[in-house]
Amino acid sequence: MDYYEEALARHAKYRGKVEIACKMPLHDREDLSVAYTPGVAAPCRAIAADPEQVYAYTAKGNTVAVVSDGSAVLGLGNIGAKAALPVMEGKAVLFKAFGGVDAFPICLDTQDSEQIIAAVKHIAPVFGGINLEDICSPKCFEIERRLEQELDIPVFHDDQHGTAVIVAAALLNALRLTKRRLEDTRIVLNGPGSAGTAVLRMLHQLGARQLTACDEHGILHKQRDYGAETHKLALCDITNLDGRRGELADALRGADVFIGVSVANALTPAMIRNMAAQPVVFAMANPTPEIGYRQALEAGAAVVGTGRSDNPNQINNVLAFPGIFRGALDARARDINHAMKKAAAYAIANLVSDEELRADYILPDPFDKRVAAAVAEQVAQAARSSGVAGGGKCAK
Amino acid sequence: MDYYEEALARHAKYRGKVEIACKMPLHDREDLSVAYTPGVAAPCRAIAADPEQVYAYTAKGNTVAVVSDGSAVLGLGNIGAKAALPVMEGKAVLFKAFGGVDAFPICLDTQDSEQIIAAVKHIAPVFGGINLEDICSPKCFEIERRLEQELDIPVFHDDQHGTAVIVAAALLNALRLTKRRLEDTRIVLNGPGSAGTAVLRMLHQLGARQLTACDEHGILHKQRDYGAETHKLALCDITNLDGRRGELADALRGADVFIGVSVANALTPAMIRNMAAQPVVFAMANPTPEIGYRQALEAGAAVVGTGRSDNPNQINNVLAFPGIFRGALDARARDINHAMKKAAAYAIANLVSDEELRADYILPDPFDKRVAAAVAEQVAQAARSSGVAGGGKCAK
Repeated sequence: MDYYEEALARHAKYRGKVEIACKMPLHDREDLSVAYTPGVAAPCRAIAADPEQVYAYTAKGNTVAVVSDGSAVLGLGNIGAKAALPVMEGKAVLFKAFGGVDAFPICLDTQDSEQIIAAVKHIAPVFGGINLEDICSPKCFEIERRLEQELDIPVFHDDQHGTAVIVAAALLNALRLTKRRLEDTRIVLNGPGSAGTAVLRMLHQLGARQLTACDEHGILHKQRDYGAETHKLALCDITNLDGRRGELADALRGADVFIGVSVANALTPAMIRNMAAQPVVFAMANPTPEIGYRQALEAGAAVVGTGRSDNPNQINNVLAFPGIFRGALDARARDINHAMKKAAAYAIANLVSDEELRADYILPDPFDKRVAAAVAEQVAQAARSSGVAGGGKCAK
Repeated sequence: MDYYEEALARHAKYRGKVEIACKMPLHDREDLSVAYTPGVAAPCRAIAADPEQVYAYTAKGNTVAVVSDGSAVLGLGNIGAKAALPVMEGKAVLFKAFGGVDAFPICLDTQDSEQIIAAVKHIAPVFGGINLEDICSPKCFEIERRLEQELDIPVFHDDQHGTAVIVAAALLNALRLTKRRLEDTRIVLNGPGSAGTAVLRMLHQLGARQLTACDEHGILHKQRDYGAETHKLALCDITNLDGRRGELADALRGADVFIGVSVANALTPAMIRNMAAQPVVFAMANPTPEIGYRQALEAGAAVVGTGRSDNPNQINNVLAFPGIFRGALDARARDINHAMKKAAAYAIANLVSDEELRADYILPDPFDKRVAAAVAEQVAQAARSSGVAGGGKCAK
């Protein structure tokens, strides 16, 4: 199947992917008088008297906004709000299909950080959570930080944290298979943008201590000038602690793990051959990875993962975000914190048993119904035990 | 049935009314690759190359935002964004049930006009139309005017224009029944807020020439000081052309029609007895009308309509807005102009045949499937013949 041709045909046939449905009966005048006037005045009054009741009487508690400004969409770059809509609709229907979460696409006709923050805050009353999507780095960091601070509902930039969770899950299992401890593993990440930064931070929080980050100018170290990309300077506090300099090839010499969230063909077979024995290669550039699945195996990689559905070991956020939001909404968490992300990563990794674990099977299938349920349960439990569950900070 | 008690129970049981559904198959990895990555890149690229294609490949063309700031909700007043949500969800499901329109509730956490305008403009890429709802007068006029001007999709304040259309339809049939011509009919409207102002303007455009408006201070005339309520001064150009002064009771002496969009019990039986023979009384204050249905009949009214579903002749916007937006979206109208509203009013009125028309049956039933279809067809045709159909002014 030519996915591109088929996608054009199906999107035109169905005129997009999301539609609105009614959850309550609406068959006669009595139903109308309950769902709408005059009956609807009763839940309105109850919420006016106690704003927390909005969770009891409306769809808010199960509804998430998938928000993008279209500035960094897939591998397509800055294509704007309208062109981003098919992706946001897609995300919305995956939320429903895999997590039972009602997500609605919000594509913003502005790329100004302050206007994005203001727009999201203004529409927040309808939503139980905000999923930021495909907003370019570095402004995505500030937008997420401000919204987390200023809203009493969870805010989650999936490109950052969804990716971090699924990479962590994949890595946990790749290390299980190759019998390594995270603490002792030398990990090189290429592409410290929004996803790469979050991956590095998450692996550090999970215990990784030998991390190196590379961008198009080589290894990140404290003496480089990063301009507006202050997140790269900040990464030097947890990466490259011995201050090495050089290119990606230098960083990879003797390394155990390559994680690519960068560009097509950034990794060569020669680089893999110079890594440690039984190297792990996650080449996740979309749609063309840093090195092809087969080519990486031929160069000696013990475990290979990509973002593609047509290779084994697809490392895709769809295993993470539906269950993460399902759990956060179920616990009425006001944040999605590290404890919850860690719980999600372990829940996904643990769905592959020791018997099932193989070099070409390190992650469960996205259509495995157990995934979102297991993630949701562990995330909700982590929310409760870390003290962010149960009602907002304060009702506005 | 106690509608209030039942509404609390049902809203709690279903946790609100709207949910998101997926229009495209999503059963296996192939479907995932078409609806999401990598296939979804194809419609994204097509829209990036030609923004008008957003109507071909996304849900935009069938999706409407139901936008409120919660400043004037039903008869409940300024109850804010969260408490307004049950009404906006209700409106959204009526759009779907009666017009096949996918509407999503947007309750804004601001009551500042400029912020409302900015927020709606920023989220507009996702929507094919904007339905403003329950925004207080007079700011609703400016918000609607600006959004109409600055967006290339139709903007419609239902409290104004939906009410105007359905009152016009009801009045056309009441005059048909009592054998009056609109031109010669003396009409008194009580409550020139957002709805009342739009009703007066629409009736004037349809040919009414003997209009009088009253507010809580009596008859509107040019010498009164209206402060910020400049819409009332503007109404003096089309009402009370002979400059009469006095109270509502004075205005009603000898009048043919009373239209109330004001407050409970504003109309007394004595006032009706002083009207012309065979008076028409539309008492639409919610939930308690200006005078009860039965009481108005007993005072001599020939035709009585209210906003209540438990009386005959319910004058309710649900007969208008689903078909109006259905027609506007079908024609891809960039505005909803007078020609379209007039077409809607006549389409509704004409669904009651001469044989069916009775004092207690001047409007079709909301569950009559013909209503939205007839309205949509006439509205789309009016859009085409008035030159506002077929694509936006310009793609951003």
